[in-house]
Amino acid sequence: MNFLKNISSIESISSTQNHRVKYWAKLRKGNFRRQEKVYLIEGFRELKLALQNNIEFIELAVVVENIINENEQNLIKEAALRSESIFSINKQILSKSTYRENPSGFLAITKQNNSNLNDIHLTGNPLILIVENIEKPGNLGALLRTSDAVGVDFIILVDPVTDIYNPNIIRSSQGSVFSVPFVIADGMSLNSWLKKNEVQMIAASPASEKLYWEIDFKLSTALLVGSENEGLSSYWNDFQNVKFVTVPMQGQVDSLNVSVASSVILYEGFRQRSQG
Amino acid sequence: MNFLKNISSIESISSTQNHRVKYWAKLRKGNFRRQEKVYLIEGFRELKLALQNNIEFIELAVVVENIINENEQNLIKEAALRSESIFSINKQILSKSTYRENPSGFLAITKQNNSNLNDIHLTGNPLILIVENIEKPGNLGALLRTSDAVGVDFIILVDPVTDIYNPNIIRSSQGSVFSVPFVIADGMSLNSWLKKNEVQMIAASPASEKLYWEIDFKLSTALLVGSENEGLSSYWNDFQNVKFVTVPMQGQVDSLNVSVASSVILYEGFRQRSQG
Repeated sequence: MNFLKNISSIESISSTQNHRVKYWAKLRKGNFRRQEKVYLIEGFRELKLALQNNIEFIELAVVVENIINENEQNLIKEAALRSESIFSINKQILSKSTYRENPSGFLAITKQNNSNLNDIHLTGNPLILIVENIEKPGNLGALLRTSDAVGVDFIILVDPVTDIYNPNIIRSSQGSVFSVPFVIADGMSLNSWLKKNEVQMIAASPASEKLYWEIDFKLSTALLVGSENEGLSSYWNDFQNVKFVTVPMQGQVDSLNVSVASSVILYEGFRQRSQG
Repeated sequence: MNFLKNISSIESISSTQNHRVKYWAKLRKGNFRRQEKVYLIEGFRELKLALQNNIEFIELAVVVENIINENEQNLIKEAALRSESIFSINKQILSKSTYRENPSGFLAITKQNNSNLNDIHLTGNPLILIVENIEKPGNLGALLRTSDAVGVDFIILVDPVTDIYNPNIIRSSQGSVFSVPFVIADGMSLNSWLKKNEVQMIAASPASEKLYWEIDFKLSTALLVGSENEGLSSYWNDFQNVKFVTVPMQGQVDSLNVSVASSVILYEGFRQRSQG
């Protein structure tokens, strides 16, 4: 009955007082995740992309009787082969440990990415997304999905306010945190990196008269995205060469949703690059 | 001190047991809003757009001492002139009555729009959005903002599952529910309306080989949007002439956020129409 029966080293946990359970529950807090340099994967869609991208797991905890679907069982089996420790748990423990209201039946723990700007090697004419601050997890998740779709080469998160390892972002990105490489950079390092590399930088601004479709996206391009409420920070004043573009609006509302505006610009880039 | 002092007919309510307070609190429920055919406006951004679009109010309840900013006072004064009844309330009553965690300081109640397909008069080459079902309020709100921006002529909500008067939609639309005309239609009426009117219908489908930018958006066009999880319902099988288009994706994630995908298509329409 137990689809994991061939995997020998499964430890069973049945008490919510177990120290692992307490540890997992604490990982729902951003500060603790940062301290431990790990994060949680709770959904199958995300697990699938994590596996596709060769992510390794530190721990995998499974409510075995809840995983009935064969595809899901196969994903869990594959994850088990890539996990240092495997635990069999019950529903009660799972709901104490996960962030979601309706957990999928498992919990995987993996290491945070610690890539930095030195890990980036530019080739060809890359398409880069630089995210300074996006307030809502759903918006960053949506933008990560678009980045995956249009082939963004990598994402640079500048001094991130938003914790990309927030379970709501992992979920709403549908796992694109695993498929699109990203690095976290402080302003100073990014400054010298940008000055060294020849990449046209574009940012949306309602004050600009240049329309976003007038940009030549066949050049190496970085799109800068700031806060929906505050826009880009004064950090960018240092850069004389940012091209401001407008996503034209003919209605009464004064701004678009930040993931929508950024995605519209990225797809125009994709359209131009596809049309040769 | 009271910026509403010149308005004579203000009734003061100080008890949370008052029947108006109980009535407002009940309006947080979709069923009760539908029964009463009214809804709530809770934020200044939305109030501003409501005023710009000549919305009248049934009731306006204000925590007078909380409205300090002059622009906000002016908006409330203007709303008061357009409201049948005006109430002065305290913070406690407001927080009992509003949906938001951090209420702005007022609550306005207005009638639900009861326009139907017969109220639509097509002229020129309209751009129409037909929404069947969007699960998340934030996604519908974002799409309404885009519709306002690209000049969608009107939105048709088909047998809506989503209550457009949900306070989270009013809020995330930033008031575009007031600036973009919409009608609610049942499937049968829409069916005959669509067969009578010559409008090209397009819908996103990952299975299509036609790219969205290959569509001629200068024609009268209706974009159909279905559920992010389920797609369009079988209702549309009746229509032989729906053109399916794909928003190409070259990554690993299998779909875009629904408001992002729809906005990308709408902006391509806007780009084509702007370029003459």
